[in-house]
Amino acid sequence: MANNIIEQTATLLTPESLKAHWQGHRGLSRRILDAFPEKELFEFSIGGMRPYALLALEMIDLAEGGVKGLATGDWTMGDGAPRHYGQSDNGIKTKAELLALWDKVTADIERYYPEIAPERWQQVEKAFGMYENKGIGTLQYLIDNEIHHRGQGYVYLRALGIEPAPFWDRQ
Amino acid sequence: MANNIIEQTATLLTPESLKAHWQGHRGLSRRILDAFPEKELFEFSIGGMRPYALLALEMIDLAEGGVKGLATGDWTMGDGAPRHYGQSDNGIKTKAELLALWDKVTADIERYYPEIAPERWQQVEKAFGMYENKGIGTLQYLIDNEIHHRGQGYVYLRALGIEPAPFWDRQ
Repeated sequence: MANNIIEQTATLLTPESLKAHWQGHRGLSRRILDAFPEKELFEFSIGGMRPYALLALEMIDLAEGGVKGLATGDWTMGDGAPRHYGQSDNGIKTKAELLALWDKVTADIERYYPEIAPERWQQVEKAFGMYENKGIGTLQYLIDNEIHHRGQGYVYLRALGIEPAPFWDRQ
Repeated sequence: MANNIIEQTATLLTPESLKAHWQGHRGLSRRILDAFPEKELFEFSIGGMRPYALLALEMIDLAEGGVKGLATGDWTMGDGAPRHYGQSDNGIKTKAELLALWDKVTADIERYYPEIAPERWQQVEKAFGMYENKGIGTLQYLIDNEIHHRGQGYVYLRALGIEPAPFWDRQ
């Protein structure tokens, strides 16, 4: 019983503080992306894993579709265009294109996130038409997934002899 | 103004849901640790990085000291014993010892976490005597740091030809 009272009264995160946390992580992820040499970004791999360009495209797609889905309940990506990551020829050939997409999604988050209604955080639905979760769970998943793959990017960079920005440096 | 009202009324996480999220991640991290062969756990490295045993010890120490510090405000680790990770000879020589330490911390979290008072989440203090943050920010940092290093463990395992448990599998 005591625990239930604590749960009801403790404030952990506000939508605004979670957005700042998310964008802080995305700032670091962008710097890790930018630290890759052009060729290695698209080709370097360890143990048969995806090159970092594809990991970054996954981050981009999930963030873009995630914030729009959370705000609107529409998980089809609006115009029905295939996601960048899923396209066999996604047209992304350069780091500059990836960074531009990244920055577009950063702006999308600023635009759509404030439209997420308060009740959406506890509302359960199938994110991306597939992954049943509360709104907050979906967003936690997206952020955790980005941290996970970015950590892999750290290993790629170290293997390439490049020192990545420190993990705690969020801007 | 509208945004302020949303922030005050939206519930994102409760202490209990955040604990479940944390322990879910720790369950996956334990399986990644357990997936390493004994020798490679302590010796395998890419790009001059730490072997996974040391990454796991960092996770263990931060989780153990973190939950106790959040609950009690005491960041000295209680008995003043050196942290496992920081010890040049930390006495940890086997995977079984690491897993036993891991499980001890899992129990510590169940014991101490319910003692974290509601106001502690927004209270700013120097975690581990060094890192000034809100309680919630400190716990987010610990979890994110574990995801980050565990993601690196995924690369180590793939490089060793071992398929890791999927990222979404949290138990």
